[in-house]
Amino acid sequence: MMKIAANNKLVIVGDSITDNGRARPIGEGNGLGNGYVMQIDALLGAAYPERNIRVINTGTSGNRVRDLKGRWNTDVLDLAPDWVGIMIGVNDVWRQFDGSRLFDDQVLPEEFAATLDELVAVTKPKVKGVVLMTPFYLETNASDPMRARVDQYSRIVEKIAKKYDTLYVDLQATFLKVLEHTPTQALAGDRVHPNRVGDMVIARAFLTALGFEW
Amino acid sequence: MMKIAANNKLVIVGDSITDNGRARPIGEGNGLGNGYVMQIDALLGAAYPERNIRVINTGTSGNRVRDLKGRWNTDVLDLAPDWVGIMIGVNDVWRQFDGSRLFDDQVLPEEFAATLDELVAVTKPKVKGVVLMTPFYLETNASDPMRARVDQYSRIVEKIAKKYDTLYVDLQATFLKVLEHTPTQALAGDRVHPNRVGDMVIARAFLTALGFEW
Amino acid sequence: MMKIAANNKLVIVGDSITDNGRARPIGEGNGLGNGYVMQIDALLGAAYPERNIRVINTGTSGNRVRDLKGRWNTDVLDLAPDWVGIMIGVNDVWRQFDGSRLFDDQVLPEEFAATLDELVAVTKPKVKGVVLMTPFYLETNASDPMRARVDQYSRIVEKIAKKYDTLYVDLQATFLKVLEHTPTQALAGDRVHPNRVGDMVIARAFLTALGFEW
Amino acid sequence: MMKIAANNKLVIVGDSITDNGRARPIGEGNGLGNGYVMQIDALLGAAYPERNIRVINTGTSGNRVRDLKGRWNTDVLDLAPDWVGIMIGVNDVWRQFDGSRLFDDQVLPEEFAATLDELVAVTKPKVKGVVLMTPFYLETNASDPMRARVDQYSRIVEKIAKKYDTLYVDLQATFLKVLEHTPTQALAGDRVHPNRVGDMVIARAFLTALGFEW
Amino acid sequence: MMKIAANNKLVIVGDSITDNGRARPIGEGNGLGNGYVMQIDALLGAAYPERNIRVINTGTSGNRVRDLKGRWNTDVLDLAPDWVGIMIGVNDVWRQFDGSRLFDDQVLPEEFAATLDELVAVTKPKVKGVVLMTPFYLETNASDPMRARVDQYSRIVEKIAKKYDTLYVDLQATFLKVLEHTPTQALAGDRVHPNRVGDMVIARAFLTALGFEW
Amino acid sequence: MMKIAANNKLVIVGDSITDNGRARPIGEGNGLGNGYVMQIDALLGAAYPERNIRVINTGTSGNRVRDLKGRWNTDVLDLAPDWVGIMIGVNDVWRQFDGSRLFDDQVLPEEFAATLDELVAVTKPKVKGVVLMTPFYLETNASDPMRARVDQYSRIVEKIAKKYDTLYVDLQATFLKVLEHTPTQALAGDRVHPNRVGDMVIARAFLTALGFEW
Amino acid sequence: MMKIAANNKLVIVGDSITDNGRARPIGEGNGLGNGYVMQIDALLGAAYPERNIRVINTGTSGNRVRDLKGRWNTDVLDLAPDWVGIMIGVNDVWRQFDGSRLFDDQVLPEEFAATLDELVAVTKPKVKGVVLMTPFYLETNASDPMRARVDQYSRIVEKIAKKYDTLYVDLQATFLKVLEHTPTQALAGDRVHPNRVGDMVIARAFLTALGFEW
Amino acid sequence: MMKIAANNKLVIVGDSITDNGRARPIGEGNGLGNGYVMQIDALLGAAYPERNIRVINTGTSGNRVRDLKGRWNTDVLDLAPDWVGIMIGVNDVWRQFDGSRLFDDQVLPEEFAATLDELVAVTKPKVKGVVLMTPFYLETNASDPMRARVDQYSRIVEKIAKKYDTLYVDLQATFLKVLEHTPTQALAGDRVHPNRVGDMVIARAFLTALGFEW
Repeated sequence: MMKIAANNKLVIVGDSITDNGRARPIGEGNGLGNGYVMQIDALLGAAYPERNIRVINTGTSGNRVRDLKGRWNTDVLDLAPDWVGIMIGVNDVWRQFDGSRLFDDQVLPEEFAATLDELVAVTKPKVKGVVLMTPFYLETNASDPMRARVDQYSRIVEKIAKKYDTLYVDLQATFLKVLEHTPTQALAGDRVHPNRVGDMVIARAFLTALGFEW
Repeated sequence: MMKIAANNKLVIVGDSITDNGRARPIGEGNGLGNGYVMQIDALLGAAYPERNIRVINTGTSGNRVRDLKGRWNTDVLDLAPDWVGIMIGVNDVWRQFDGSRLFDDQVLPEEFAATLDELVAVTKPKVKGVVLMTPFYLETNASDPMRARVDQYSRIVEKIAKKYDTLYVDLQATFLKVLEHTPTQALAGDRVHPNRVGDMVIARAFLTALGFEW
Repeated sequence: MMKIAANNKLVIVGDSITDNGRARPIGEGNGLGNGYVMQIDALLGAAYPERNIRVINTGTSGNRVRDLKGRWNTDVLDLAPDWVGIMIGVNDVWRQFDGSRLFDDQVLPEEFAATLDELVAVTKPKVKGVVLMTPFYLETNASDPMRARVDQYSRIVEKIAKKYDTLYVDLQATFLKVLEHTPTQALAGDRVHPNRVGDMVIARAFLTALGFEW
Repeated sequence: MMKIAANNKLVIVGDSITDNGRARPIGEGNGLGNGYVMQIDALLGAAYPERNIRVINTGTSGNRVRDLKGRWNTDVLDLAPDWVGIMIGVNDVWRQFDGSRLFDDQVLPEEFAATLDELVAVTKPKVKGVVLMTPFYLETNASDPMRARVDQYSRIVEKIAKKYDTLYVDLQATFLKVLEHTPTQALAGDRVHPNRVGDMVIARAFLTALGFEW
Repeated sequence: MMKIAANNKLVIVGDSITDNGRARPIGEGNGLGNGYVMQIDALLGAAYPERNIRVINTGTSGNRVRDLKGRWNTDVLDLAPDWVGIMIGVNDVWRQFDGSRLFDDQVLPEEFAATLDELVAVTKPKVKGVVLMTPFYLETNASDPMRARVDQYSRIVEKIAKKYDTLYVDLQATFLKVLEHTPTQALAGDRVHPNRVGDMVIARAFLTALGFEW
Repeated sequence: MMKIAANNKLVIVGDSITDNGRARPIGEGNGLGNGYVMQIDALLGAAYPERNIRVINTGTSGNRVRDLKGRWNTDVLDLAPDWVGIMIGVNDVWRQFDGSRLFDDQVLPEEFAATLDELVAVTKPKVKGVVLMTPFYLETNASDPMRARVDQYSRIVEKIAKKYDTLYVDLQATFLKVLEHTPTQALAGDRVHPNRVGDMVIARAFLTALGFEW
Repeated sequence: MMKIAANNKLVIVGDSITDNGRARPIGEGNGLGNGYVMQIDALLGAAYPERNIRVINTGTSGNRVRDLKGRWNTDVLDLAPDWVGIMIGVNDVWRQFDGSRLFDDQVLPEEFAATLDELVAVTKPKVKGVVLMTPFYLETNASDPMRARVDQYSRIVEKIAKKYDTLYVDLQATFLKVLEHTPTQALAGDRVHPNRVGDMVIARAFLTALGFEW
Repeated sequence: MMKIAANNKLVIVGDSITDNGRARPIGEGNGLGNGYVMQIDALLGAAYPERNIRVINTGTSGNRVRDLKGRWNTDVLDLAPDWVGIMIGVNDVWRQFDGSRLFDDQVLPEEFAATLDELVAVTKPKVKGVVLMTPFYLETNASDPMRARVDQYSRIVEKIAKKYDTLYVDLQATFLKVLEHTPTQALAGDRVHPNRVGDMVIARAFLTALGFEW
């Protein structure tokens, strides 16, 4: 059964996968962008119109967990959410691989874990629920260096979800099942930014965790 | 159970609600536009990756049934579809209301019925299934002149669906249930072109008729 | 007989219907925008050139009465008008219907009445005349929820006009007469923003109230 | 009393003053441009909604009477008008003054008279009425060379109007009355292309000739 | 004989006729704009290359003499000119005619005279020479209201030129000779802003006053 | 004394130095471009308004003499000129130096001479006068390879001018005098395309050959 | 020792990796695009200026070997090359993976081999040398489905190179050595289109095969 | 042998030849611009991937040595480079030739020498190596005024390189060898800004000085 109650507010925060062209300073209504957050809002609005659930997108392209921390008050807590969805980590890893070497200050696992822990710790008591999504890399080869590194960060997300007893969505695992049938090239050109189908894989996993029924 | 089998091709044709910025000459993949057809493709790709269903969009803004007839071979039959979805009629009605008085040649109910009948008749034998959707007008007042007129055309669609035993989706009825909770202004600025939520209402009704399971 | 005397200054203030692309910070001359204010200026300039009446547009898209209050000194009183025209209210209502749910702080009837009363009260003694226009919704069905709500706000406008003995233009009533012959779709795509004909309906009603003779 | 009957079609043809950004190939509805034709349509739609008069604009920037002749069938007669409005002549004169010396082939009075006569002769029997407007030059000094030349062409228009007993609008005379109070610089930057006020002067004179009542 | 000596700096200041698209903050070299100042620079550079005269343009569109005063230090004196050219006045007059009625604060003859006098008084002692150009209106009819008003301002310029013994260029008189052969429409579309030929008329008169020899 | 009589037509043809942004298909009036042809027109219009000389620009960027031949009828003879100005040759040389190695088919001196001779031969008898300008390269070092090559082509131009007794303008010689005082960098960034000053050097030399008096 | 002799012409043809924004219809000089072909030209021009080698780029984005065949005469043979470089195959494979399912007509290995064989067979006798480059996929995991498929096509290229004794560049092997030190994300965002470094890897391998010495 | 060790950082600073469209505030990775710095990075990344050398571009168009001084801390020292490449001087000279006469404050040889000396003095002790490149002017005639002036500044660079025992690249000498075979027009349109080939000449000379091996 759908866990989000009537007139509740759901804020989803993250990186470019969440952002996807949302409006500034706050993405809502027609300003939710073109990604999985828009699909979540559309599915909620179509299937549960009587709940009047309000979805807000505060994803920002390029963000790593360190950036989330910097804007957590403004972009999450100040919005007084009932539910908070968080997807972070792929840029924390990617900057270690893509030659953007100005990032001398990499966000390594220790900092990633400490920061995310802090954000969940401060948020959990103030809301009705938190949904933690793992980062993902659309690569089936588990020994691919970037895949392996993303998995490492995903385990951190999982651990924090357990520690704080939040909802938890293992997007990497979800995608791996789809990748059994669909080539990565048909889901995301760069294995990071999903197209419409990849976004729906996320939306579906997110909503399923919340008890969405078709 | 999902009626569309593995590797089948679904062509959806209609007016601007279907078009929604699709690529030319054929909308497919990233060129499906931003409307309900894209959502249908995303939901099929996410929930049934092993079926590898191919979705094609040949909606064209402004089309009335007369226009569909003119391009039926090129844009539907030549594509060798297994399934065909059709949504038409709102422009046939709208041109009678919006002051585009150059349209001396209105598409009146008789022509609408005859033409749609002809298109379904020629198509049904060549495909595995046809899905007929009614037009709709996001107005709760059944005596509103344009709503009444759209309903008249919807009854024609319903009659043809029965005559040829096609799948039938009464979008007006579907929307009326949502309008009990959501103002028309929050679904479509002009009561004709749905936003993301309105599009999902269509996608959901369409897929439900096909046996889609979440 | 035309009430506005020679060399008088008429300031019209309101929302997007008034704004219509006017110049900033003050709309005048070629910067009056493309709506009813421009038509009023053109009709006055063509029919009463010897009066040299100066028309100024300070409408701002999206404004509700609360916004007018915030800029009343700058955009109305500081301009030292002889006459002031006011059209406000449709956004106060629309925000309650169109899903822009970030507007937690709706402008409800009580605030609407109090604020408009205050603006007229402070203005009336300083000018030769005030023209209060009602908001309107181009919908003939009086029980349509948004139409009913707009009517409620119109009654407030009417009451204030009577209290302060200002000129009063019931635009909803005026439009209803035109809607007997012209479909709403041919006057305003979204029932709110008039096209050239709808704007002239407003200009004509406004000028008639002022004694304009062709 | 308004001479144009219910459901009649009025086609207005001319040069850039008529064109004013109209849609191609035919200007109608929202494609009437931003000039006097749009104002005529707005005034008719607002004051005579029950007549449902259809206004069409086929003015083309830069046209001289010779150009009208070349497109008379396509842009006037083929549209089956009930009423035809014609304003032509200022470019026929202007090309003799503005240094566009490539126009070796000037349209001199003889050709102007013969061509306009021919157009009216062929049109009059097919329609309910013709409205001939004179060209104009917003200059009060009757001995200004271009003003004098425009006056010469206006007399030709007047003569043809009398010969064929059409409605006749002396725009130069109409503007001279306005110019008693309004500087030419406030009506038309180049004394040829009117702004909103100048356009309304034309619309008002045109409609008055047709019996328009406010 | 050319009065401007080798390596001297000539600053020309004025309104849009001088500005003509010059670079900001200072127009020089390829940033002199496309008007008469550019032509003066080109003629000096071509005919007197050994003098290496430096030309600077600080004209600003829309300026009246009051605006010149506000930027006189920055845009004239601080540049340490050897020669200063000044053309001002047409906007001081035009604002009284073109319906820009927001300019309640017209620059009337008294202010024009006092301000220009002050600017010349403070400049003359610091430079080798000042060239005062009259404003002009490309209208041959001396009793045209705007022409008459411009002439009035020109007489003020002439008087100040005599009082301070500066070089003086009567542009109105110069243009009247050209207008004997060339229609005003072939020199300036709005009788104010000259085209390439009109600009050369100015450049030629200016340079002739300075002793330029072909 | 100015050789071009009243109402004569002067056509100037050449490469990008002549073209300089002219209008298509024929550059005249405000479409003369921004180079020396515009300056010639402006100087003629300002100094000889009573002659009403018509200047036409048919230069085309990138042209070599071979290209002129291909369009000589259309762009020169068909325009029925009284006078023809020709500047050609720098691209014939430049293509041999700038690495546009696709031009396997270089225009070598023999072809250059034969083609130009033919063009002058066919033109001379049909017009009142021809003005042949040499190409130029703004380089003072006569042994620079491209300068030497341009000089070679200039000698061909000179020879043809003498053979047919046309007016002759040695632009290279003219520029060398200016280059004694002005660095090449201040006349043309690439030593080929003059700026405003370089263009005036050409205009002045051209007009001087025609007897222009200031 | 550099195999390409003085004044020889090298034509390189391929897909988007070769194209990289080249000019149309033929890329040469400044129109070589921004990829490895431009780098090859730059290195040849800098290191062997005395050879004056001419490099031409006729790569076209999206091409598969079937497309090359369709334009082989126009874009290769008609240009009379001395040397021909060919890189093709990645799109032939990619279309089988990226969901562009409209490509029902995949280019499978048999067709790939037959077509490339034919192109080399017809070309080899007419030129001094052919350089065959393998396609590549910047993935270190040899069992990745797309990498494995690309390898399969590379073996075909290798076989043809041996059969016709052409120069052969195994780009996959070359890149694998670089990938030991550089993550794929730092060479090509999508593992297909190299950045500046990846392009130089290609240019270096290509030139080394030709005997280039630094 | 390549002098730059693994994981070292090379900062190259200079004028527009270095800048070439780099990203702000710091050019790195895909933001290195399109010139010789990008080529150096590509060659290092392709030939020495195991060294992971980081290249940073802080060139700024229009800079003279005086400008470098103003931003030396921010744009060089603060970046903690291991190696610094410097190319400066051509604008210091050019401003003396190109008529940008606003530059009253020319950077003459004395200031050039003193400033560059100061920059090298402060930098040398903090880094592993400095590479000083001379400015250049792609002109073979040593007595050309601007060439001679550039040579004078190059001698200053050479002297400072010797004084501080830095690496030294005589780009003028390097280019003169290429100019024996390639016309200046095929290397740089204005003899200052190299095209792709000219840029590679610089990259090759720079890397050769550092011991680069192909």
